[in-house]
Amino acid sequence: MSHPFFTYYGPISVNKISELLNTKIDITSNVEITDIKDLSNADQNSLTFLHSNRYKEVAKLTKASYCLTTHLLKDYLPKTCRAIIVENVLIATSIITSKIYPNSIEDEFDANVKNIEQTNFKNNIKYGKNVLIGANVDIGSNCLIGHNTIIEKNVKIGNNCKIGSNTIIRNSFIKNNVSILDNCVIGKKGFGFFPNKINNLRYPHIGIVIINESCEIGCGATIDRGSMSNTEIGKNTFLDNQVHIAHNVKIGENSIIAGQVGIAGSSIIGKNVRIGGQAGISGHLKIGDNADIAGGSGVIKDVPNNTKVMGYPAKNIREFLRENK
Amino acid sequence: MSHPFFTYYGPISVNKISELLNTKIDITSNVEITDIKDLSNADQNSLTFLHSNRYKEVAKLTKASYCLTTHLLKDYLPKTCRAIIVENVLIATSIITSKIYPNSIEDEFDANVKNIEQTNFKNNIKYGKNVLIGANVDIGSNCLIGHNTIIEKNVKIGNNCKIGSNTIIRNSFIKNNVSILDNCVIGKKGFGFFPNKINNLRYPHIGIVIINESCEIGCGATIDRGSMSNTEIGKNTFLDNQVHIAHNVKIGENSIIAGQVGIAGSSIIGKNVRIGGQAGISGHLKIGDNADIAGGSGVIKDVPNNTKVMGYPAKNIREFLRENK
Amino acid sequence: MSHPFFTYYGPISVNKISELLNTKIDITSNVEITDIKDLSNADQNSLTFLHSNRYKEVAKLTKASYCLTTHLLKDYLPKTCRAIIVENVLIATSIITSKIYPNSIEDEFDANVKNIEQTNFKNNIKYGKNVLIGANVDIGSNCLIGHNTIIEKNVKIGNNCKIGSNTIIRNSFIKNNVSILDNCVIGKKGFGFFPNKINNLRYPHIGIVIINESCEIGCGATIDRGSMSNTEIGKNTFLDNQVHIAHNVKIGENSIIAGQVGIAGSSIIGKNVRIGGQAGISGHLKIGDNADIAGGSGVIKDVPNNTKVMGYPAKNIREFLRENK
Repeated sequence: MSHPFFTYYGPISVNKISELLNTKIDITSNVEITDIKDLSNADQNSLTFLHSNRYKEVAKLTKASYCLTTHLLKDYLPKTCRAIIVENVLIATSIITSKIYPNSIEDEFDANVKNIEQTNFKNNIKYGKNVLIGANVDIGSNCLIGHNTIIEKNVKIGNNCKIGSNTIIRNSFIKNNVSILDNCVIGKKGFGFFPNKINNLRYPHIGIVIINESCEIGCGATIDRGSMSNTEIGKNTFLDNQVHIAHNVKIGENSIIAGQVGIAGSSIIGKNVRIGGQAGISGHLKIGDNADIAGGSGVIKDVPNNTKVMGYPAKNIREFLRENK
Repeated sequence: MSHPFFTYYGPISVNKISELLNTKIDITSNVEITDIKDLSNADQNSLTFLHSNRYKEVAKLTKASYCLTTHLLKDYLPKTCRAIIVENVLIATSIITSKIYPNSIEDEFDANVKNIEQTNFKNNIKYGKNVLIGANVDIGSNCLIGHNTIIEKNVKIGNNCKIGSNTIIRNSFIKNNVSILDNCVIGKKGFGFFPNKINNLRYPHIGIVIINESCEIGCGATIDRGSMSNTEIGKNTFLDNQVHIAHNVKIGENSIIAGQVGIAGSSIIGKNVRIGGQAGISGHLKIGDNADIAGGSGVIKDVPNNTKVMGYPAKNIREFLRENK
Repeated sequence: MSHPFFTYYGPISVNKISELLNTKIDITSNVEITDIKDLSNADQNSLTFLHSNRYKEVAKLTKASYCLTTHLLKDYLPKTCRAIIVENVLIATSIITSKIYPNSIEDEFDANVKNIEQTNFKNNIKYGKNVLIGANVDIGSNCLIGHNTIIEKNVKIGNNCKIGSNTIIRNSFIKNNVSILDNCVIGKKGFGFFPNKINNLRYPHIGIVIINESCEIGCGATIDRGSMSNTEIGKNTFLDNQVHIAHNVKIGENSIIAGQVGIAGSSIIGKNVRIGGQAGISGHLKIGDNADIAGGSGVIKDVPNNTKVMGYPAKNIREFLRENK
């Protein structure tokens, strides 16, 4: 209902959910669900989902009234939240989300863009040749947009931003004083789908990309939007060239990410973190504040606050260097 | 003769081959060779080449009548195939191929493209601004082509395909239901040449890129065409962002290749293979069906079917995790 | 004064330097400094800087008359060079450079480009659609420039060069017979700045990119210009796709750099060096002539001439393979 970008096709009744998922839900009246959200963002009108015991602590605090989950996980939910038992939680989540936000699944190019010269932006922006602007775009004052750049639909850009040339942005909030350099792709759907022998089943991506104040995003970066939550870069965080940030990743403020780093889906990176060139962070990890990850490292488990790691698998840097003299 | 894309300047007589390579060939009559092909694709009118004992098993079965090879390797050939002994097999192969397909060496931009609005495609395709289309291009029904995308010469695209924006495609077959996202370069020549102190000698790339049904290719991917065979992605295989696929690589169906993976030249990847982010596969390897390669791994030897590997050099994942607790 | 590209706002008096840096400089007359250069390029009218004892040997030979440095390092300077003691050498260097070359800090897109059809280049170049050309651009004879490519201001291109499509070049010298393929970004400022909790402080990049004769640069490559010295690729060196070359890097001639390699800032690579796919070289290293770095390696210390290394951290290849059987 409150989604900033994707057209809302809700609400949806619990009866309808039951029918779509072919599952029995024990209800007395036909309640309406207004939205589907992750455990921490859900409110009492929302449906949420719990698919792994990795999220059991968050589950205990959810405010959602209904939750797609399994027999094994249902007891982590608070009494205020009714479990809807399904065989595959993520597929069920995907089915319901696709019903509420059907146009969040596919990323067709935006066929409704106009040349910036045909829009009102031509008066208050410095822009290059062949700049294209989609519907539902807002751009603040004192911004630059380079040649051949495409701001597709659903983009809010703050003041004093500099967007380079040949860059594509969609479904994103760009705050003030952000620089995005050349050849980037920001806000496309993430690499998330259910493998299937005939045709992989894409799942919806209703998250957006948020790039906070004073960030810099290097050339050739790709930052995918989230599936059920947002992808977010904290303020004054700088990314070098050819960095890849997958869906649902969150990076804290004042972090420094060197060239060719890749961060896999749903990992949470703290503030003041330094990541050296070509390092890779696996999915669903938590990297603490002030962590320092040496270039080339492959991080496959959580890194505590104030810790330096190196190697593949990454370990305490002193230990790594002692073993590799 | 049957090459779908490069202009054919054959046939070529065995006398002419002898003269070009400055080598003696013992023949009774002046036979004509219609084509040059790799060991397994050659027929009895073809010349082939054998430069490494890695290919001895394939060599035994070749149907070619002539083969460029060395004294050490010639005995692997069947009796129906006459050896043409040369000092450097790959250079000799390059010389003959360049003679038969001279325009397969260089990748100049296609100066003969037209804006799609000047072609008949404007009637049955949904397209963006500034889309360019070369000669010898076929596009099926119900396709989308994003802004600034260039379909250079020699491209066949099936039905229901979605090509993103800022993407360049040449010398490729794209089958039905394929999605290619933004900023990709598909079908350029591979990184193959003979090092030479004054001027590296580029070799011809007569292979094409084939992307089979229902594949998805992520943003910023590069897929090079093959030198003497094709580069091929099996059906329903998905590649994430910033993946690099070198010349002659073949990937089976239903595989999943995460972000920033690189696969070096001529490696063969099976079906149902999963490759984690940033993993690298060296050249000329064979990765078996259902293999699972952990993110960040560096694979430098063959991986059998149904095997999980991790590390650099990649080894059995249990062994790796035991050694790296 | 002699900078080929950035507008010169010098000279600057030593009194003014003292005032800008809020430091006392003991001088008898108010000398004027014409330029700021690194230790080896400075002449007697230049100011230079010494911030690490890694450069003590070069410091001994500098011809500069003044040097920004610290109490600990000042004794490495020759008697002809007066130390200007500052707390943070790089910040001081940044402040003075920004004063002399103020427009070397930011990389705004070049808003003054023209379509090539409005320039004289249309007569002697073969070019694609939508090619843009900035001010202070020179292009030799017999060159090709592909579609949507942007040659921003301050670029010199030699004869017989082939520039692909969707590529952006600025602040660069491209010598004869160079090929730069599609989707590259050449000559943007490096990823150099002083971290600061509110707003990272970008430092100026007055170095340029020099690509010497007969090089080939693969698709999607990024080559950043230098901060206080140039980024340079030696003649007949070939880079594969998706390579990242950071600021101040120098690569010798006849080297071969495979796909997805990253070279961090200020490293010096020798000639005839081979670097396998996805290898990473840390910053400020020296890789000797004829070195061979295996694909996937992470190099964190200097590599002597004629040495093969492998692994992370990279070590002698025989040692690595023995330990990893």
